[in-house]
Parts: sequence; C-alpha cells; structure tokens
Amino acid sequence: MSTVGQPIECKAAIAWEAKKPLDVRTVVVAPPQAGEVRIKIVATALCHTDAYTLSGCDPEGLFPCILGHEAAGVVESVGPDVTSVAPGDHVIPCYQAFCGACKFCGSGKTNLCGSVRAWTGKGIMKANEQSRFTCDGKPIYHFMGTSTFAEYTVLHAVSVAKINPQAPLDKVGLLGCGVATGLGAVWNTAKVEAGATVAVFGLGAVGLAVIEGSVIAKAGRIIAVDTNPEKFELAKKWGATDVINPKDSDKPIQDVIVELTDGGVDYSFECVGNVHVMRSALECCHKGWGESVIIGVAASGQEISTRPFQLVTGRVWKGTAFGGFKSRVDVPILVEKYMAGEIKLDEYITHNFKLEDINQAFELLHNGQCLRAVLNLGSA
Amino acid sequence: MSTVGQPIECKAAIAWEAKKPLDVRTVVVAPPQAGEVRIKIVATALCHTDAYTLSGCDPEGLFPCILGHEAAGVVESVGPDVTSVAPGDHVIPCYQAFCGACKFCGSGKTNLCGSVRAWTGKGIMKANEQSRFTCDGKPIYHFMGTSTFAEYTVLHAVSVAKINPQAPLDKVGLLGCGVATGLGAVWNTAKVEAGATVAVFGLGAVGLAVIEGSVIAKAGRIIAVDTNPEKFELAKKWGATDVINPKDSDKPIQDVIVELTDGGVDYSFECVGNVHVMRSALECCHKGWGESVIIGVAASGQEISTRPFQLVTGRVWKGTAFGGFKSRVDVPILVEKYMAGEIKLDEYITHNFKLEDINQAFELLHNGQCLRAVLNLGSA
Ligand SMILES: [Zn+2]
Ligand SMILES: [Zn+2]
Ligand SMILES: [Zn+2]
Ligand SMILES: [Zn+2]
Repeated sequence: MSTVGQPIECKAAIAWEAKKPLDVRTVVVAPPQAGEVRIKIVATALCHTDAYTLSGCDPEGLFPCILGHEAAGVVESVGPDVTSVAPGDHVIPCYQAFCGACKFCGSGKTNLCGSVRAWTGKGIMKANEQSRFTCDGKPIYHFMGTSTFAEYTVLHAVSVAKINPQAPLDKVGLLGCGVATGLGAVWNTAKVEAGATVAVFGLGAVGLAVIEGSVIAKAGRIIAVDTNPEKFELAKKWGATDVINPKDSDKPIQDVIVELTDGGVDYSFECVGNVHVMRSALECCHKGWGESVIIGVAASGQEISTRPFQLVTGRVWKGTAFGGFKSRVDVPILVEKYMAGEIKLDEYITHNFKLEDINQAFELLHNGQCLRAVLNLGSA
Repeated sequence: MSTVGQPIECKAAIAWEAKKPLDVRTVVVAPPQAGEVRIKIVATALCHTDAYTLSGCDPEGLFPCILGHEAAGVVESVGPDVTSVAPGDHVIPCYQAFCGACKFCGSGKTNLCGSVRAWTGKGIMKANEQSRFTCDGKPIYHFMGTSTFAEYTVLHAVSVAKINPQAPLDKVGLLGCGVATGLGAVWNTAKVEAGATVAVFGLGAVGLAVIEGSVIAKAGRIIAVDTNPEKFELAKKWGATDVINPKDSDKPIQDVIVELTDGGVDYSFECVGNVHVMRSALECCHKGWGESVIIGVAASGQEISTRPFQLVTGRVWKGTAFGGFKSRVDVPILVEKYMAGEIKLDEYITHNFKLEDINQAFELLHNGQCLRAVLNLGSA
C-alpha cells in the first residue's frame, strides 16, 4: 500500500533537550507539501555539528529536534510542483540549499543560497512554517533543514541533490558534509595550485579530506598538524608530507611552520573550530600571498584576532561553508568522482551502527576514536 | 663643479627623538655606493606614517632619523653598477622596493619585494650597513628607505622609479604613497568591478583616493564614512554617492550600512588605522562575497577581532601595502595616467610649505585640516 500522501510512522532519534542522550522513538512524518520532498534515509553519518548542537553550546539550537545532516536515501514522495526529483530517485540531503534563483545563487560568487535559510534556521518548513515531525502528537523541530537521524525525513526540494542510482548510499552520504567540505575548501575556496605548500590543522575527517583535496590539486608539500599524534599515521596515508605536533615545541606552532617552510605556507586550513588555532593557521601563512581558510565551527561567542599587520603584509583570511560547493549542482559530480575512483569515501568510515545504537556512536565521536560512524537505517 | 663622488652638504629635517619638533639642520649626504642612487629632492609631502613614527608609537622607529617618504626629485649621481637610472633622470622614491628577482617579486603574487627590507627596516644601506647621512659627524638613520625630508637623499636603486621628465615633480610625488595606495587598494587588492557597492572608512587623502579609484572602476555605489562631517563635501566632490557619520546613529555603523545596502557592501576599505573601524569595515560586507581591505596602519600592539562566523559565511579579510603596486614598474604608469588627466593629484594638495616650516606642516596634519601638505625644496 502506497504511503504517498499519507503520514508515515517510523523510527527517529529525538534530542528532547541539550546534553541528554538521544531517544529512539516512533515519530509521524507528515507528507511533503509544496516544494518539499519526503526521503527514506538509507544511511546517515554523525558529524561534530550534531554533537555541538546536542551539547547545548549552539545558541541557535532548538529542542526537541531530530539531528543529522550527512546522509543518503531514496525519494519516497514529493509535494505538489516538485519537478527536480521524483519518487525512487537516489538523493543526498544538503543542509546548504541551492535554488539557482536567489540573490546569492544569482551572484555566482557564493554557495550560500538564501532561499530557505530563514525557515531551516527556525527548524520548520517554508510552506506552512511548521514541522513535519511529531512524536506523541508533539511537534519536533527539524535541524539544518535535513534531520537525517530518522527513517523518513522531509526536506525542501532545493536542498535535495539527485545522484547516480548506482552509488552506494551507505558511502556517498559522506558527501553531504565533512568530506565535501574539506575537498571544496581546497578546490573552491583556496584554489590550491600545483606545487603549493599547505598546512592542515586538525586531522579528523575534514582535515583528511583537505589533505586528499590537496593531493589531487598536486600540492607540493602538505603539513598535517594535530595535538594527537595517533592521527599522524592516517594523515601520512592520506598524503601528508610532514606531520607536526604543536606540543613537541616550546615555540608557537606558527613559528615552527614558518621556519620549516622558509617563510610560511601558501595555504592553511583550520579544521578544529578553535579560535586560537585559527590565529595560528593565519600566521603560519607566507607574507605576501598566504591564504588561510577557516572551516571549523568555533563555539558561540568566541572571536578570532590577530595583528592587522598580518593582513597588511599580504595574508588573506577567509572561511568556507560546505567547501564552496553549490550543493544540488556539485554533490552529484562528487558522487561521480567517487564512482570513478577519484576520491575516497570508504576509508573515512571507521564504524557502522544501527539507529538504536546512536548514543554509542556519539560516544565514539566525542572520544575522537573514529573518523565517521555511519548508521545504517535500511535498504534502498 | 660636480658633486659626483663627493659628500654633499645640504639641509634636512632631523628627528632627533620622538615627540620633539623636527630640527632643520645642515647634514652631509655621502655619495651613493654600489646599488645606490643619490637624489635631489624637489618636493616632498607629509604622510601620517611620518607623524606616527615621530610620535614614538612605532616600536621600530629609530632616532635620530630623517623622515619622509612621499616625494619626487632628480637623480644627482649613481653608485657603481647602477643602470636602472642615470644622473638627470626624474624619479619618485619608493619605500616599497621592486627588484624583480627575489622570492617575492618572482612570485607574481605580491608587491612586497624582499631585496632590501632587512636594511631599510634598520635605517641603513645594504652596501656597507651604514647610513649615508651625518650631522656634525653623527650618523643619522634613514627612514623607510627614503628619507625625503632632505634636499638630498640616498636610496637603493631598487627603490627608485624613473618617471616621465615632463611630469611636475611637486605634484607626482604624491604617487609615492597615499594616493597610489588608495587607488591600488581598489584596482589591485580588491579588484572592484563595475556596478559594485563600496564603503570607504576615513576620508583623508587615502580614503579619497579609494573613492577616486572606485569611480574609475565604475563602482555603482560609493559610501563614504567619517566621524568628521566636514569631510563629506570633498568626498562627494570625489564621487561618493552616500556619506555617513557613524555618530548620527545609535546602531553600530556596520548595521547601518548593511541596512542601507540590503545586506552589505561588496567591498570595504579601512583608511583610518583603527582596529575597531577595521572590524566595522569587515562586518559591513555582504555575506557570501564581501571583501574588506585594511589600508590604515594601526598602533603597535593593537589587534583586530571578529567572530569567525563572519568569514565562514563568505566574507574575506585582507590588507594592502602600497596598494599592491609593484613600485618601479607601476609608479611610472601612474604618472602617465596623471599626465593624461585620468587621475587627480593637484586636488589633494591643500598646503605648500618650505622645509623650514615643516613643523607647522605637521601641526596641520595632526589637526586634520589638510589632505596633503607639500614641502617645496628646490627646482629640478
Ligand atoms: Zn557536518
Ligand atoms: Zn538560492
Ligand atoms: Zn605614507
Ligand atoms: Zn624583489
């Protein structure tokens, strides 16, 4: 019996409030309205942004909500007027929408589509300004416009990337956030050129993706930095030419890198979310042309600082969101790159869990023992 | 009788120590050594950087010294092996050298030549690591590699731009610093495109040059910001489309500008040297693509800060030194632009003095009553 047009009962992990374990419960997922798509999630990974919001440190976090934003699945049904995808399409939910028509999309200068941001930021859908999730009749907020810790979820159609149906959904979901962000920071935001020297701060999945992106861009030297030396083996495997532990020197890490590189690196990437590391990343750049890209998300209220002299002498400070990729356009291309063996994904997946074990997966994330833990929710 | 190879006695304004009036005295200017050029200064302007160093706030300021770095003159003689200029050539001293051969010049990415920086920073000449100035037998430090508050000065040849001999030296000297910096910040550093919206903070000579550069770049809207409303008339005359006094609103100036421009400006320029204004200049930029360029020199030890979110959402923070112009290559081109009537210079010169009246000229600079005060030292 078709579920089209009907509410769907399914399981989802609910964050009732900050700092509490997630609660796997039966929720009701309303049918998609105009401009919306209901998706059966096949696999979803956990990302630090989920943990950040769950920690209660995100002032924009809304509870109760269904977290999750790095996933892949199959379109179950679409609302009226949706033509970009159809039931049965394989898709990746994108927390960064792409409408192609707003001021941002039209600028050609940014991937920060403004079409649904006002609603996704409030945990609701644009059509009627309400949530599509209820649990025991109580509305549950959406999260990042994706809410993938659920067997079924509803997204704005502008946030749904249609991908190659041959792609393994339990792998390519990683292109919905971390890996894409790291690759794009190198290719789109910094535009690292062949022979360039690169420094990467923080060697989680995003940092490794920066290394991979730099290898593909043919960077001449890739310096991997982390305070946890256990991460160095993977960094080298991914292609780092140098690994540095800031704790191994009394000098500030930026000074160590400037000496090591005879003046500093051409590009640096901050993948930690620590404002002090952001400063180091800027200041390890070469005078005259070094560019530093902030990828990590700092805790609310924290500020970056440096002497203006750093910029006046030619360094550039920038940041990236989703690696500058225009989600609906570029994610399918990234999937093809994976299918062609041009980019890794499998190697980032260190753990697999069922939805019921999501709290165990979050523990792993907190402990830094994993790159990506994937929850396998069902089949396509 | 030729002065070539001989020490020259002439007048110069000596800064014996910080915070004291300059002392116009007879100095001895030694002949140029290998790679050096001795120049008869015809006219020199005062710039805020001279005042900053004289104030004692510049930790790298060395005393006694001869200040001055915005000037024009005629080559009196050259040291052995100098082929780029010859006696009689009309020239502009450039505090930013261009050698064409060092790591920086060779990069093609920056104008920050490294060929003589180590010596100019120490107030001495590279050939023998000594000064060419003495007063009563006591060595007097060079300043910024230029020391133009003197009837004769010695520069490294890499810091001397040969210009059109038809150009009026009492005007084109302004291309040695402020006006060139403002124009270049727009053309080289920000690369403002036609139709763009621009905000300029600080309406001294550099800020006005930013307005002029923006007009030439066909910016669609140019918002001039200053806390002194007396500057607005000139700003409009130069081409500002809007003038704003931050004191006229209770809201932060960045919020005022974001509202006024429906999201922020495409490019902003800080021409004040105040770290709080630098933050406002960044934060008034449009999400997704706005770029802010720091031109002003902040007091030593001061730091800029912002929330990293500003950068992660697509704003870019950069700076410029001498507007990104490669001095020996680009200054002669700017002179031609002036000769062709494409850029203003005369309009920036509000006062003229003799060298003897230099302290009076500094008073004017402190009081903000002038754009540029030019000291006329002699004829070509
Ligand atoms: Zn994420
Ligand atoms: Zn859009
Ligand atoms: Zn100056
Ligand atoms: Zn050079």
